[in-house]
Amino acid sequence: MSLIQQKNSVNSWLEFYSQVRHESVLICEPLEIEDFCIQTMPEVSPIKWHLAHTSWFYETLILKPFLVGYKEFKPEYEILFNSYYESLGPQYPRHQRGALSRPTVEEVFSYRKHIDVHMAELLLQVDSASREIILSLVELGLHHEQQHQELMLTDILHIFASNPLKPVYTSSVSMRPHRVGRYKVAGTKWLNYEGGLTVVGNQSTEFVYDNEEPAHNVYLEPFQIASRPVLNGDYLEFVESDAYQQPSYWLSDAWRTIQQEKWQAPLYWQKDEGEWRQMTLSGVEDLDKDAPVCHISYFEAAAYARWKSLSEPGVRLPTEEEWESVAFNMAVQGNFRNLKSLRPMAATVLEDANQPSQMFGDVWEWTQSAYSNYPGYHAAKGPLGEYNGKFMSGQMVLRGGSCATHADHIRVTYRNFFYPHERWQFSGFRLAKDVK
Amino acid sequence: MSLIQQKNSVNSWLEFYSQVRHESVLICEPLEIEDFCIQTMPEVSPIKWHLAHTSWFYETLILKPFLVGYKEFKPEYEILFNSYYESLGPQYPRHQRGALSRPTVEEVFSYRKHIDVHMAELLLQVDSASREIILSLVELGLHHEQQHQELMLTDILHIFASNPLKPVYTSSVSMRPHRVGRYKVAGTKWLNYEGGLTVVGNQSTEFVYDNEEPAHNVYLEPFQIASRPVLNGDYLEFVESDAYQQPSYWLSDAWRTIQQEKWQAPLYWQKDEGEWRQMTLSGVEDLDKDAPVCHISYFEAAAYARWKSLSEPGVRLPTEEEWESVAFNMAVQGNFRNLKSLRPMAATVLEDANQPSQMFGDVWEWTQSAYSNYPGYHAAKGPLGEYNGKFMSGQMVLRGGSCATHADHIRVTYRNFFYPHERWQFSGFRLAKDVK
Amino acid sequence: MSLIQQKNSVNSWLEFYSQVRHESVLICEPLEIEDFCIQTMPEVSPIKWHLAHTSWFYETLILKPFLVGYKEFKPEYEILFNSYYESLGPQYPRHQRGALSRPTVEEVFSYRKHIDVHMAELLLQVDSASREIILSLVELGLHHEQQHQELMLTDILHIFASNPLKPVYTSSVSMRPHRVGRYKVAGTKWLNYEGGLTVVGNQSTEFVYDNEEPAHNVYLEPFQIASRPVLNGDYLEFVESDAYQQPSYWLSDAWRTIQQEKWQAPLYWQKDEGEWRQMTLSGVEDLDKDAPVCHISYFEAAAYARWKSLSEPGVRLPTEEEWESVAFNMAVQGNFRNLKSLRPMAATVLEDANQPSQMFGDVWEWTQSAYSNYPGYHAAKGPLGEYNGKFMSGQMVLRGGSCATHADHIRVTYRNFFYPHERWQFSGFRLAKDVK
Amino acid sequence: MSLIQQKNSVNSWLEFYSQVRHESVLICEPLEIEDFCIQTMPEVSPIKWHLAHTSWFYETLILKPFLVGYKEFKPEYEILFNSYYESLGPQYPRHQRGALSRPTVEEVFSYRKHIDVHMAELLLQVDSASREIILSLVELGLHHEQQHQELMLTDILHIFASNPLKPVYTSSVSMRPHRVGRYKVAGTKWLNYEGGLTVVGNQSTEFVYDNEEPAHNVYLEPFQIASRPVLNGDYLEFVESDAYQQPSYWLSDAWRTIQQEKWQAPLYWQKDEGEWRQMTLSGVEDLDKDAPVCHISYFEAAAYARWKSLSEPGVRLPTEEEWESVAFNMAVQGNFRNLKSLRPMAATVLEDANQPSQMFGDVWEWTQSAYSNYPGYHAAKGPLGEYNGKFMSGQMVLRGGSCATHADHIRVTYRNFFYPHERWQFSGFRLAKDVK
Repeated sequence: MSLIQQKNSVNSWLEFYSQVRHESVLICEPLEIEDFCIQTMPEVSPIKWHLAHTSWFYETLILKPFLVGYKEFKPEYEILFNSYYESLGPQYPRHQRGALSRPTVEEVFSYRKHIDVHMAELLLQVDSASREIILSLVELGLHHEQQHQELMLTDILHIFASNPLKPVYTSSVSMRPHRVGRYKVAGTKWLNYEGGLTVVGNQSTEFVYDNEEPAHNVYLEPFQIASRPVLNGDYLEFVESDAYQQPSYWLSDAWRTIQQEKWQAPLYWQKDEGEWRQMTLSGVEDLDKDAPVCHISYFEAAAYARWKSLSEPGVRLPTEEEWESVAFNMAVQGNFRNLKSLRPMAATVLEDANQPSQMFGDVWEWTQSAYSNYPGYHAAKGPLGEYNGKFMSGQMVLRGGSCATHADHIRVTYRNFFYPHERWQFSGFRLAKDVK
Repeated sequence: MSLIQQKNSVNSWLEFYSQVRHESVLICEPLEIEDFCIQTMPEVSPIKWHLAHTSWFYETLILKPFLVGYKEFKPEYEILFNSYYESLGPQYPRHQRGALSRPTVEEVFSYRKHIDVHMAELLLQVDSASREIILSLVELGLHHEQQHQELMLTDILHIFASNPLKPVYTSSVSMRPHRVGRYKVAGTKWLNYEGGLTVVGNQSTEFVYDNEEPAHNVYLEPFQIASRPVLNGDYLEFVESDAYQQPSYWLSDAWRTIQQEKWQAPLYWQKDEGEWRQMTLSGVEDLDKDAPVCHISYFEAAAYARWKSLSEPGVRLPTEEEWESVAFNMAVQGNFRNLKSLRPMAATVLEDANQPSQMFGDVWEWTQSAYSNYPGYHAAKGPLGEYNGKFMSGQMVLRGGSCATHADHIRVTYRNFFYPHERWQFSGFRLAKDVK
Repeated sequence: MSLIQQKNSVNSWLEFYSQVRHESVLICEPLEIEDFCIQTMPEVSPIKWHLAHTSWFYETLILKPFLVGYKEFKPEYEILFNSYYESLGPQYPRHQRGALSRPTVEEVFSYRKHIDVHMAELLLQVDSASREIILSLVELGLHHEQQHQELMLTDILHIFASNPLKPVYTSSVSMRPHRVGRYKVAGTKWLNYEGGLTVVGNQSTEFVYDNEEPAHNVYLEPFQIASRPVLNGDYLEFVESDAYQQPSYWLSDAWRTIQQEKWQAPLYWQKDEGEWRQMTLSGVEDLDKDAPVCHISYFEAAAYARWKSLSEPGVRLPTEEEWESVAFNMAVQGNFRNLKSLRPMAATVLEDANQPSQMFGDVWEWTQSAYSNYPGYHAAKGPLGEYNGKFMSGQMVLRGGSCATHADHIRVTYRNFFYPHERWQFSGFRLAKDVK
Repeated sequence: MSLIQQKNSVNSWLEFYSQVRHESVLICEPLEIEDFCIQTMPEVSPIKWHLAHTSWFYETLILKPFLVGYKEFKPEYEILFNSYYESLGPQYPRHQRGALSRPTVEEVFSYRKHIDVHMAELLLQVDSASREIILSLVELGLHHEQQHQELMLTDILHIFASNPLKPVYTSSVSMRPHRVGRYKVAGTKWLNYEGGLTVVGNQSTEFVYDNEEPAHNVYLEPFQIASRPVLNGDYLEFVESDAYQQPSYWLSDAWRTIQQEKWQAPLYWQKDEGEWRQMTLSGVEDLDKDAPVCHISYFEAAAYARWKSLSEPGVRLPTEEEWESVAFNMAVQGNFRNLKSLRPMAATVLEDANQPSQMFGDVWEWTQSAYSNYPGYHAAKGPLGEYNGKFMSGQMVLRGGSCATHADHIRVTYRNFFYPHERWQFSGFRLAKDVK
């Protein structure tokens, strides 16, 4: 059941809207004004840009067309905070977002307030002829904002990690007791799946993105999947086997990347006096060997699998269809943003022999599937058609959400996608294996 | 039946070897020495480099390990003519191949002769204990050389097209009569396919590359496929609709590319006094509107399909599995290199209502499938494992061979792959369509 | 007489120190915190970086070596705020200064306060054996800070001009009445100079940089110099003559630059509905045709002179020696930062027939002299030797100070230098002419 | 006396023309066709381009305007072989000259023959009204060709040195006996010069470039100059003192260059099993420690001088005016191209206590003078004005000619110029010293 059905009273819509909007503000609480302004690589956006862009989304797609008499907050924002919607006009260049000292953070918060007031006004107009379309756009807008909330966290981490002073975003007390009491982590097991004809893609009436549809049959060969993601401790072995100097493990594009970028280890790992440590949202900490490896590119995930397959033939990454068939009946539970750990954590419950653990939360899991359209896919009409469809080249699918994803924002059919060299997301992976 | 079985006498092996090797020389006949030396973009290799590298392949993988007492032609060639085999040591940088005036063309031909003499010697040793492995490597080497023969033609065209003097490679008389008598080409029809569970991948015992295996089941939704490729005349409409200025048709990566590269039309098209003309291996000629469009990137193929889908919903590119299921029982016949037209041509036979035309030959057809491993794929051991497997990221699959492909080198399961922005190959496309 | 002699009491030193330090703070008054953080091109530094670096200069060169028991404010600052002093250790990369959200602006001001307290402590130690060397370093540090004050203004203008919102730094009331009552500007006249043997370089005992010494003889041919700088109105003619499309006026390097950078006019000029306007520290304003043209590269100055020479043979830029000989006996007066106009202004007094006007202040004047050492030049020992000497290649000399230069910081022998393509400084030019 | 006066008979002009033209052909004798075609860096031109461009110069500036009824060889050459003359229309991009396999070398030689035939026709028209202007253009064309002859040699060396096979251009027997019998080289001495008012620039009526005029007074402080250039042995000490890792010796721009380009030693030096060797036109040879160091950038020359000045204060590079005043009365003799050694050589005669040796020939000597116009300089009208004037920014002056310069092409006032980072010319340097 979609939110549109679920939250059918005015109040519940206003409540949900306010709640999501407030979450963006909460994420900013530990920040200094200076932290809102900078862009440490082209893929990172300044935090204030995220705050403004998510507001622009409502203004441009909902308020301007549907709220009679609405006056835009500032005409220049139309271009300034358009991310990539060609159908909505020109965009301020992405890689120069960090060149804007103005609007100030305060002005951006005023902009948010302006949007919120008018969105409330619109949401209270319960008898609008466009009620249904408005609500579906609001729902999309809220999911869009939740996505940006995750990006805000990944961007904050990049901004802080780029700084030799290594600032701390959160002291993250919530995770401490958690780890103290955890059960001993058992070794990774291979779990068997029969494959065969399976349905992939959304079959519910809940909100999903267009790229999760239509549901369709796929035929899967029998396969095995690892009972848990690859851990820091596992990956450390790979790093210390001199893997970043061995071309044979790496895809051709990957090898070029690690040569050019001089990669030696996952992003945010650093070696201090012989010990590997890791920059996190809580500052630089010792590597937790039992936690899933994170800030890994597809290239690194694929190289690890290739390395592993030398001793254990058939090891590889799962396809997104395999991943979805494994996760199909599992509860969508895990270490999400809601838990406030803001880092992947070691598993804390006894592992169930029949179910893989940590499928949801902790780290997005790279699959070996290139991001493409499902058979019968139709991009939405108008600007929303640009939301997902135009990125269907050159990127790989990740599944399952991460410790920076809101629990309300993830589902078994959710398809995230990034370029194979990108690794500033909370991205890790899990192995699969062919069955002869 | 593989060549190893087919050509089981010494003579037939020597004959096949000589024939393929000679073909490389024949391709060079129209060239001046100057044409062998230059590199007009990083993806292009000097023709003499192709001639040497294909010889290096036999020397390194066959002669050095298997011919007792073999002395290498020149020690420096080991690095100089290694393309990308990390397991065979360092490689001279690809983008600097055009910086080598030496070895001269004559020296390269001497190198070829040296290799040929010793390969003959080895092929005559019929009772070698390694006979079978040698023959399988020879077979691979010959297929490898056939691939490079196609690349030589695409590179010659790029070299000539880059030159304001627009040299002519071949007067191409062979195609003239051909076009005079051709039947009127009927309009494109949509042909129906039921889909369902289908086997994809090699099931024969013939020679195939490792990436064509293993055969496996896939489930296909019902679909339609166009009875012929998109033609120059079709694509011209797209170009003249101002499509290269309309971001909405293009993938995000594509739009960036056409902005940066200032693309306005397919590669090798030029507008002379209001008329579109096209550089070919026969020089600049009028655009043949009935011939398949060629020198098209995946980005352009996808944009065309998107544009078409606005008026005809459901239009898209086929997947490689759809393409293979369509071609499965068709004869592998068409306008191949053997015909010496060296250009895509208009269809010349009455179209069969039940079969698509020009599936093989004329132009490689882009599919919407990212190049990846089939389920259960295992890369070959050793250097040959680098032949296909390490390119499985960022590239798209093309099917069916082109007018520059040798008829002996193509088959229904053959998977070619290039990056989505590349378009100096003889690449075009055919449309598919969803069935509601 | 140097400051060391002039201000020989403890009080006058403290006073001078406090006054210059306070000026840096005053310049920041109109800024929002966001304005302190960003870097809009590699040559621009974040304003908070300037504030910290000028403090680092005292800490590193004075407090650490000379104040017993001094504890550094924060060890990381040693690298973070070193600009280019190789002899003082590694430097945080210049082009990444804008990637640092921390230290915050508040922390930087604390750093300044920390330095100021300890500098006061040191300045009060009147009987130190190192008193003289300390005072000479303080003097250098204050001149260094004054230079950075000018850079802060040029960088603020660049930061604001890069922003589509075009923020206003100062409402600049001080200049308004000024222009109302100004005298009519007479036409430019050529003033004659006899040349001959002339002394160039510092002959006083005042503070100067090492690059202004030693004084030495030069022989000048007779020449003429323009009675005033080239004005916006003059330069507008050049722009509107289509000069930026005419290769013949431009140096070879210049033509490459304007092609690559797509220059059409001086930096900060923009055409709004057919009218040229100009971004200034007071926002976008109409072009004042009587004010000296500003934000001009050497390339543009040289092209203008070349263009002018077509109608008036012998016109060119002056050499720095000619400029100095003209300015030699003139009072160092003009439109400096002290006047708070912060822009070049039209001349406001009746022109003296015998003296060129606006030699000092308004705009730095490009000369045709490459920046090099005077005969007999010796770079200072130690880190101070890096202050000027290592920049003696590829740059051109500018003379006379600008509206952003403090009146205390300029003198007739002062040599400023920038690359010929740089134009974000307050730089303009004046013409000279050969005498047949 | 200019050639126009000297060679006043038809025969002597034809002879001189033929002789210079033939020299270009002779230089190509050791080359394979492949060697004519490639471009190993943007600054290098293919040898066949030099051959064509020098011919284009006569065709465009002389034959087209002055030979009635002249038909151009091929219209496309007008653009293809224009180097940088904006006033003569568009130019094929310099960095893509290596992308042209056609015209073939044979066609280029036909082009040369075509030009030569028509130039002979024109030179025989002794009573042409334009005789004088034609002859002055011919004279310029021949000097232009001599310059390109030197560039051909430097480019051939770059092309061969870029090749791992290290081809040999000439066995260079001419130099062997030469070195066997040479006198012991005495140590470097400092020679004193009084300075004072001196005339610099051309005072003769011989042919000179416009940039050597007008003659003008300069005032020189007293100085010393080294009796010979810096030798390989001297420079080796610098290299082995770890100088390329010591930022303090280097100009700021230089340090950036050596970091980016990873310079460790002069161009063409290589360390083989602990021994420094050097690629030359005779292949890789042991470093001749008594020969002048060569293939040195200005950056390296300046760093060496700075390093030397630490132990011997006042050491620096000479200015071009100092160099010219030293050379003023010396015979223009030395190791030029005519001697066919094609490399700098150790001095072979007893040194004269009163005169510096090797001022002419061997290596071009970097001066510390930026290339600029002399006072009163006027660029020639029309395309010839682009010959020298538009390069007057960012480059440094070199003096004296090299082993690749023709003896007829050098004179005491000759000013060569290159960018401070360029080092593929036969460039070295000599030290000067301040006199206290």
